[in-house]
Amino acid sequence: MTSSQSTLLWIVLGCSVFALLFAVWLARWVLARGRGTPEMQRISDAIQQGAEAYLARQYKTIAMLAIAVAILIGIGYGYFRATTEHDPVSSAKTLALYVTGSFLLGAISSGIAGFMGMWISIRANIRVASAAMTSLNGALQTALRGGAVSGLFTVAMSLLGVGGLFALLDTFPPAGIPADQWATKIPFLIVGYGFGASFVALFAQLGGGIYTKAADVGADLVGKVEAGIPEDDPRNPAVIADLVGDNVGDCAGRGADLFESTAAENIGAMILGVLLYGQFGVNGILFPLVIMALGLVCSIVGVMTVRTAEDADPMAALNRGYYVTAALVTVAFFFATRWLLNPASAPDAWWHYFACGLIGIGTSIAFVFITQYYTEYRYRPVLGIAEASQTGPATNIIAGLAVGMESTVLPVIVIGIAIIASYALGTNSGLVNAAGEPIGGLFGTAAATMGMLGTCGYILAMDVFGPITDNAGGIVEMSRQPESVRDKTDRLDSVGNTTKALTKGYAIGSAALAAFLLFSAYLDEVRNYTGQALHVDLSKPAVFVAGLLGAMLVFWFSSLAMTAVRKAASSVITEVRRQFREKPGIMQGTEQPDYAACVDIVTVGALKAMVLPGALVVLFPIVVGVTFKHFAPRNQYLGAEAVAALLMVGTIAGILMAGFLNNGGGAWDNAKKYIETGVYGGKRSDAHKAAVVGDTVGDPFKDTAGPSLHVLIKLLSTITLVLAPLFI
Amino acid sequence: MTSSQSTLLWIVLGCSVFALLFAVWLARWVLARGRGTPEMQRISDAIQQGAEAYLARQYKTIAMLAIAVAILIGIGYGYFRATTEHDPVSSAKTLALYVTGSFLLGAISSGIAGFMGMWISIRANIRVASAAMTSLNGALQTALRGGAVSGLFTVAMSLLGVGGLFALLDTFPPAGIPADQWATKIPFLIVGYGFGASFVALFAQLGGGIYTKAADVGADLVGKVEAGIPEDDPRNPAVIADLVGDNVGDCAGRGADLFESTAAENIGAMILGVLLYGQFGVNGILFPLVIMALGLVCSIVGVMTVRTAEDADPMAALNRGYYVTAALVTVAFFFATRWLLNPASAPDAWWHYFACGLIGIGTSIAFVFITQYYTEYRYRPVLGIAEASQTGPATNIIAGLAVGMESTVLPVIVIGIAIIASYALGTNSGLVNAAGEPIGGLFGTAAATMGMLGTCGYILAMDVFGPITDNAGGIVEMSRQPESVRDKTDRLDSVGNTTKALTKGYAIGSAALAAFLLFSAYLDEVRNYTGQALHVDLSKPAVFVAGLLGAMLVFWFSSLAMTAVRKAASSVITEVRRQFREKPGIMQGTEQPDYAACVDIVTVGALKAMVLPGALVVLFPIVVGVTFKHFAPRNQYLGAEAVAALLMVGTIAGILMAGFLNNGGGAWDNAKKYIETGVYGGKRSDAHKAAVVGDTVGDPFKDTAGPSLHVLIKLLSTITLVLAPLFI
Repeated sequence: MTSSQSTLLWIVLGCSVFALLFAVWLARWVLARGRGTPEMQRISDAIQQGAEAYLARQYKTIAMLAIAVAILIGIGYGYFRATTEHDPVSSAKTLALYVTGSFLLGAISSGIAGFMGMWISIRANIRVASAAMTSLNGALQTALRGGAVSGLFTVAMSLLGVGGLFALLDTFPPAGIPADQWATKIPFLIVGYGFGASFVALFAQLGGGIYTKAADVGADLVGKVEAGIPEDDPRNPAVIADLVGDNVGDCAGRGADLFESTAAENIGAMILGVLLYGQFGVNGILFPLVIMALGLVCSIVGVMTVRTAEDADPMAALNRGYYVTAALVTVAFFFATRWLLNPASAPDAWWHYFACGLIGIGTSIAFVFITQYYTEYRYRPVLGIAEASQTGPATNIIAGLAVGMESTVLPVIVIGIAIIASYALGTNSGLVNAAGEPIGGLFGTAAATMGMLGTCGYILAMDVFGPITDNAGGIVEMSRQPESVRDKTDRLDSVGNTTKALTKGYAIGSAALAAFLLFSAYLDEVRNYTGQALHVDLSKPAVFVAGLLGAMLVFWFSSLAMTAVRKAASSVITEVRRQFREKPGIMQGTEQPDYAACVDIVTVGALKAMVLPGALVVLFPIVVGVTFKHFAPRNQYLGAEAVAALLMVGTIAGILMAGFLNNGGGAWDNAKKYIETGVYGGKRSDAHKAAVVGDTVGDPFKDTAGPSLHVLIKLLSTITLVLAPLFI
Repeated sequence: MTSSQSTLLWIVLGCSVFALLFAVWLARWVLARGRGTPEMQRISDAIQQGAEAYLARQYKTIAMLAIAVAILIGIGYGYFRATTEHDPVSSAKTLALYVTGSFLLGAISSGIAGFMGMWISIRANIRVASAAMTSLNGALQTALRGGAVSGLFTVAMSLLGVGGLFALLDTFPPAGIPADQWATKIPFLIVGYGFGASFVALFAQLGGGIYTKAADVGADLVGKVEAGIPEDDPRNPAVIADLVGDNVGDCAGRGADLFESTAAENIGAMILGVLLYGQFGVNGILFPLVIMALGLVCSIVGVMTVRTAEDADPMAALNRGYYVTAALVTVAFFFATRWLLNPASAPDAWWHYFACGLIGIGTSIAFVFITQYYTEYRYRPVLGIAEASQTGPATNIIAGLAVGMESTVLPVIVIGIAIIASYALGTNSGLVNAAGEPIGGLFGTAAATMGMLGTCGYILAMDVFGPITDNAGGIVEMSRQPESVRDKTDRLDSVGNTTKALTKGYAIGSAALAAFLLFSAYLDEVRNYTGQALHVDLSKPAVFVAGLLGAMLVFWFSSLAMTAVRKAASSVITEVRRQFREKPGIMQGTEQPDYAACVDIVTVGALKAMVLPGALVVLFPIVVGVTFKHFAPRNQYLGAEAVAALLMVGTIAGILMAGFLNNGGGAWDNAKKYIETGVYGGKRSDAHKAAVVGDTVGDPFKDTAGPSLHVLIKLLSTITLVLAPLFI
C-alpha cells in the first residue's frame, strides 16, 4: 500500500472509532433522561431482568456451539487438510490460526453487537415512556437516539472488525511475500470473520425470534382470546415475557443480523476489489470500507436532524432523516468513486460506479415504497385482507397468504433490474484485462450493494426504534397512565411497526443484491484453488439436484422455525392457564401473577427449539458438498459446483420465502389494526376476531422465520466461502 | 425403420385402440348398472346439467384462447421467422403447418380427455350410489371401473396422438430425406402436440379448480358455519354447485393434467431417444411408446382384479390392484428393455435401463408412502395439526403450514436420488459416442420416468374414483338414504380422499422426474439450432436473474389462483345469503332453493378468474426470453440460456410449492376428519371449529393452486420447447 492508502485505512478506522464514541455520547444522553414513576420503573426493571437473564443463557449456548465449530475448523484446516500451493499462506497451522481466529472474532463481535442493541433498548424504553408524559418530540428523539446507539455501534463494530483485521494483517506481512501482493490475499484470510458473525447471528435471530413470538402468541391466545383482557394488561402472567421478547428478538436479533450483513458484504466486496487489483490497486479493496465509514458519518447527521412538532406525523420526521442520510451518502459516493476508482487507463470508470451506487440507493428507496404498499392499510393489499375478514378467519388467511406471495413480484423485478443494470454499467466502465475483455461487471454489483448499505446505520436506528417504542407503550399501558400519554406512545408504536417492516424489506433487498457479490467471492475462491473458472451448470443432473436441495432447505428451515414457535407458545399457554386456574385473584386484580415463571418457560423453550434448525443450516451445505464430491470421482470439481448451485437456488428460494413471510405477516398485522379503527364492526366484531387469527399466524412469519431466512442466506454464503477448500 | 419396427409401431397403436375399446366396454358396463330412486335421479340430473353447462362454456373460452395462440404460432413460424438450415423441414410454411397442426391436435385431444373424464363421472356417480344400496363390492367396482374409463381413455388418447402423429409423418417422408434420418426429426415436429395439450390442461385445471373450491368454500362458509346445517344438505343453495365442482375440477381438470403429462413426457423421452439413434436406431425413439402401450394393458388387468369383501377395507383392494399393475409393468419393462435397448455394441445396456425403470417404479411407490405419511391421521403430522387445533384456528394454521413445508423434504431427497442414480446407471450402460465418451446418462432418467409412468392408467382410474364416490355420497345424503347406505358411501368417500392425495403426490413426483427430461429436450432443441451445447450457468448475472424470475412466477401464480378462489367464493356467499334472506322457507324445508343461480354464478366467476393467471404463465417466459435476447446483443444465446434458467429454477420452485400446497391441504382436511371421529371434543367442539378453518384454507391449496402448478411446470417446458427458435 502507498502511504496515502495507509492513511486512508487509518481514516476508516478513525471514522469507526468516532462513531463508537458518538454512540457512547448518545447512550449517555439517553440515560440522562428521566425514568418516570416508580410503577414504571418496577415494570422496566422486570423487563430488564428477564432480557438480561435470557441473553446470558442464550449466549452461553451459542458460545458452546461456536467453540465447537471453531475447534472443528481449526483441526480441519490445521491437521487434516493437505496444504496446496494455492493457499494464501504456506503453513497449514498459520492458515488454521487465521481462519479460526477471525471466526471467533466475528462471533464475539456479533454477540457484542446484539448485546448492545438489547442493552440500550431495555434502558431507553422507560425513558421514552417517561418523556411521553410531557412531549412527543422528546419521546421520539429519545427512542430514535436509543436506536442509533445500537445502529452506530453495530456498523462501527463491523467496520472496525473488518478494517482492523485488514490493518493488522497488512502491518505484519509474512516473510517472502511482497507487501502489495499480500494485501490481495488478506480478504481470503478474514472470510472467517463473516462466517463467525453469521453463525452467531443465525442463532441469535432464531432464538430471539422464537422467544418473542412464543411469548406474544401465548400471551394473546390466553389473554386476548380466552380471558378477554386487552393487550399488555398487567393481569396477564405472560405480559412481561412478551415485552422481554421485543428486546431479545427485535433488538438483539436484528442487531446481530445487520452486523453480519455488513461484515459479510464488506468482505465480499473487498474480494471483488482484489479481482481488479491490476486496475485499481489497493484502492479497490479499500473502497467498500471507505463507503461504510462515510455512511456512518452521514447516518449520524441524519439521526441528529430528526425532530417533530407535537401535532405532526412522527413518520414524516423519520423519513426526513432518512432522506438527509441518503442524500449525504450520494455525495460521499460521488467523491469516493472519483477519488478511489479513477485509474488513468479508464477515465470513465468512476462515474459508471457512481451510477451503480445510485442504483443501490434507488433500490433501497424502492424497497421502502414497495414494503409500505404491501403492509400499510392505505393500500389495496391490506384493505383486501380486512375485507376478507368479514367472511371469517379462513378467508382472512387465504387473502393474507395471497398478499404475501404477490408481494414478492415487484421486489424481484427491482432486484433483477438492479443486478443487471449495475453489472452492465460495470462492464461498460472501460476496465479491461490484458486480453482487452471487459472485467468490471461484478464490481458494479458490489458498488450497488455498497450504495444500498451506505444508509445502513440510519436504517438500523429506525429499526431498533420499533421495539423501544413498543416497550414504552407496554410500560405506559401496564402502569395505567392517562389517555394523553397513551396516545403519544400509540402514535410512536404505530410508526415503529412501519419502520420494523421497512427494515425487513431493506434487509432482504440488500441480501438479494449482495447475494451475487458473495456467490462471486465463492466462485473466485474456488478458482483461486483450482485455477479454473467454475461454471454453475444447472443442466447437469447432479447440479440441478443440489439446487433442488438448496430450495428445499428453505422450506424445511421455515417449517422448523414455525413449529418451534408453536411448541414454545403452547407451553406458555399451559402455564398462563395454570396461573389463572390456581390464582383466581389475578383476574380480580387482588393477586400478583408470577411473571418470572413465564419468562423462565419461554427462555428454556426458545433455547431448546433454536438448536435443531440452526444446526440444520450449518450442516446441510457441508453434507451436500462432501457427499457430491465423494460420489463424483470422475468430475473433480462437482462438489464445489453442487455447493454453488445449492447456495444460489437456496438464495433465490430464501429471498422469495422471506418476502412472502415478512410482508404477509406485516399485512395481517395492519389489517387487524385497520379493523380496530372501527371498520367492519371494529374491535370485538367477528371480522376483528378473524383478523386476530391472521395476525397471530403472521407473528412467526414476520418475526421468526422471515428474519431468520435473511441470516440463513448469508450464512450459506459465508460457510461455503470458508469451507470451499473442503468441496474441491 | 425396419419392417419389424413398423410392426412395433402398429402394435403400439393397436394397444391404444384396444384400450379405447376396452374403455368403451367398461363404460357400457357402468351404464348398465341401476340408477336408483327417482329422487336420486333428480339430483344426479341437476349435477349432470350443471357440469355439462360449465364445461361447454369453459371449452368455448379455452377454444378461443387456443385458436388465438395457434394463429400466432402459425403466422410467427410461417411468415416472420427466417428459416435456417437447422429447421427439421426446409419450407417455413410446412414447418408452421406441422407445429400449428400438432398444437391444435394436442389441444383438441386434451379437451376430449377432460370431457370424457367428466362425462363418465357424472353418469357413474348415481350408479355407485344405487349400488351402495345393496353391496359395497358393487359400489367399489362401479366407481373404479368408472374411473378406469377415464384413465384408460386418457392414456390411450395420448398414446394414439403421439404414436399416430409419428406414424403419419413416418409414412409420408418429404422428398430428399432418407427415411431413417426423417424418423429422428419427427419428435421435433410434434412438440406442438405437448404444448397444445398443456395449454388446454392449464386452463381446464385452473378453471375447474377455481370452480370446485369456490363452490366448496362458499357452501361451507354460509352453510356449515353460518347456518349450522351439515355438508351436502339439500337446503344449501350451493350444494349442487359443490357437487358439480368435483366433476369439473377433479375429473375434467385432472384428466387434462395427466393427459398432457403423458404426452409431453413421451415426446421428451422420444427426443432423448433421438440422441441415441446411433446406438439404438429407431428402437430408442419407439421405446417410450412401447412402455406406455404395455402399461395400458397392465392397468386393465390391475383394474379388473379389484374386488372387496363386504366388511373389508376398500383401500386394501385398491392397493392390491395397484401392486398387481406395478408388478406387471416391471415384467413388461424387463422384456421391452431386453428387446429394444440391446445393441450388440453394449451388451449390458439393457439391464442398466431395466434398473432405471425399477427406480422409476420404486419412486412412485415411495411417493405413495410419503404422501400417506403426511396426509393420513394415523401419523405424527396430521395428529400434530389436530392437537394444535385445541388452542384455536391460529395454531391450527401455523401447524398446517409447517407440515406442508416439511412435507417437501423427503420427496426432494427421493427425487434427487432417483435422478442421480438413473443418470449414473445410464452413464455406465456401456453406450459411448464416437469419441468413446459415455452418452447414455440422460436416457437413464428417461427410462426412470417411463417406469414411473407405466402405471399411470391405473393411477388415474384411482384418482377419478375419488370424485365419483364423493358425488355418490352427496347423492345418498341429499336423497336421505338410510344409515347403512350412507355408511358404505362414507367408507368409499374416505378412501377416495386418500387416492386423490396419492395421485397428486404421484403427479408431482412424475413431473419432477420428467422435468429433467424436458429440460434436456429443450437444450437439445437449442443445440440443434445453434450447433453448440448450451450450458445454463447460474453464475452469470442475467441467468441468475432469470432463475429468480422463474421462481417468482410460481409465487405470483399461486397468489393469483388463491385470490381467484376467494373472490369467486365470496360471490357464492353473497348469493346463498340472499336466498336464505329472501326465501325463509328454504331452511324450514318448505321452499326449494335456486341451485341453478349458484351454478351460474360460480361458472361465470371461475371462467373470468382463470384467464389472468393462465395468460401470465403463457406470456411470462416469452416476455423474459425475448427481452433477454434483445438486451444482450453481445452474447448471442443469452436469451435461450435465460429461458432455460427460468424453466429450471421455476420448476424447482414449482415442485416445492406444489408439494407444500397439496400436502398441507390434505393434512388439514384429515386433521378435521380425525377430530370428527370424536377426539378433542369431536364435532361442534372449539377444536373442530378451528380445524374447519384449516380445512377451508387447505381447499384452494390442494385443489386449485397445487394441481395447477403441476400443469404450470409442464407448460413452461413445452412452451419453451416449441418457442425455442424465438429465443436464439
